[in-house]
Amino acid sequence: MSRRRAFFISDRTGLTSESMGEALLDQFEGVQFKRVTYPFVDTVEKAHAMVQIINNAAEQEAQRPLVFTSIIDPDIRKIVQSSVGLNLSFFDAFLHLLEKELGVKARNSIGKLHSITDTDRYDARMEAVNFSLNHDDGISAKDLETADVILMGVSRSGKTPTCLYLALQYGIRAANYPLTPDDLESTDLPRMVKPFKNKLFGLTIQPERLQEIRQERRPDSRYSNINTCKSEVNDAQAMFRRHNIAFTNTTHKSVEELAVSIMQACNLKRRF
Amino acid sequence: MSRRRAFFISDRTGLTSESMGEALLDQFEGVQFKRVTYPFVDTVEKAHAMVQIINNAAEQEAQRPLVFTSIIDPDIRKIVQSSVGLNLSFFDAFLHLLEKELGVKARNSIGKLHSITDTDRYDARMEAVNFSLNHDDGISAKDLETADVILMGVSRSGKTPTCLYLALQYGIRAANYPLTPDDLESTDLPRMVKPFKNKLFGLTIQPERLQEIRQERRPDSRYSNINTCKSEVNDAQAMFRRHNIAFTNTTHKSVEELAVSIMQACNLKRRF
Repeated sequence: MSRRRAFFISDRTGLTSESMGEALLDQFEGVQFKRVTYPFVDTVEKAHAMVQIINNAAEQEAQRPLVFTSIIDPDIRKIVQSSVGLNLSFFDAFLHLLEKELGVKARNSIGKLHSITDTDRYDARMEAVNFSLNHDDGISAKDLETADVILMGVSRSGKTPTCLYLALQYGIRAANYPLTPDDLESTDLPRMVKPFKNKLFGLTIQPERLQEIRQERRPDSRYSNINTCKSEVNDAQAMFRRHNIAFTNTTHKSVEELAVSIMQACNLKRRF
Repeated sequence: MSRRRAFFISDRTGLTSESMGEALLDQFEGVQFKRVTYPFVDTVEKAHAMVQIINNAAEQEAQRPLVFTSIIDPDIRKIVQSSVGLNLSFFDAFLHLLEKELGVKARNSIGKLHSITDTDRYDARMEAVNFSLNHDDGISAKDLETADVILMGVSRSGKTPTCLYLALQYGIRAANYPLTPDDLESTDLPRMVKPFKNKLFGLTIQPERLQEIRQERRPDSRYSNINTCKSEVNDAQAMFRRHNIAFTNTTHKSVEELAVSIMQACNLKRRF
């Protein structure tokens, strides 16, 4: 199998160049990529050092490296692009098109997206994270009132990471309601969440996968028994259907996919 | 101020087209953008509906919308691009270049990046998230042993969201060690973390910002008093310097920036 170095280089965190690069590399089977990310390449010196690193890599390999860049400063970008690698810069690909379309010159400097005074964003995020954390094990009626969405599901169906991701990525206050055996026996909705039916969203999971996850936590217990898992999942799904609660199966979904699906289904808007 | 619609459209979560689009739009001052994300546009029907939505928007506005797409399926991409909007598709911009360079055809289908069986990724992530959550208020020596990194700082200096982000984004097991008044009075490192000096990373913050955050939590208390904040921050920084612990100021950094800085400073590698 052929093998290629892939550099993700940015004068910021590198998250954009990584996600763009990964999405592209993912389209090529039969090539093995050796990835490395260089964030905060934000000075002329670091840019020159980067060129050296890329050129050295090129000498060691049969083929030139792929260089995905997300560098705002045009001077630094130009230096990095003087390496022998294949340059894939999304600023170069799109910035001129946008300048022409908007009739405005790009400012070519690091801007408000990663701004210094963006305390509002931090506050919204922190508030949502604290909301999630405070309610992870026990929840009050008041909490449910202030929640943007309430995720319901059996223990280990994926509620916690999804709530945290919604908080960190979108500032969404997601509450976590674990369905207890008592809840599952009833044909009614749990008393606590009943007044907030319009905020409920259900998570379900394949019983086999649930068993696997629970087994890690409490091996060979009633909790992790396949029959317990099957019956809990069955009861939970029956509850969602009976009360017309939208739900999704988490088994084959990433946390990102779950979060975005929930935002879409519940018509939630990011808070920052 | 002129005003433009910006569509972020994807057959997946839309996170890549959003982050690429935001980075580009951020370069234009004096234009107000009205953003909207459409994830999971993954059928011919949804693609045609999308074209209608874009064309309707174009009719309502003086200028055509900007359309940032991250759509893997070439047929669906083609339909979406038949709208009157300005098309900015990073797959179109880079996929042919990569095909030529690699000598391999792109498979043009949703791939392993968001793969169905990526339970390893989920497990690494969950393990790290659980690690973070379990140790948020109290920590054991065993926890510290298995941590990838230990974030130290005074209460409300930004440890918790950073730990959670490191866990969710990179699968890094980040422990959270809050510096108590007792810790801060001593010239020694806290007894518990002393054996793990090589894993320590410090967080500090502007006392004024710390006061603001603490004030939200416990208004007009000793905890949120500016003098308390100043003296705690001073003592913490003195400790970091005395023991040569790398540290960063969280005041003007996003959680993403903090996480990436820590990964870089501590030479941590993502676990998935």
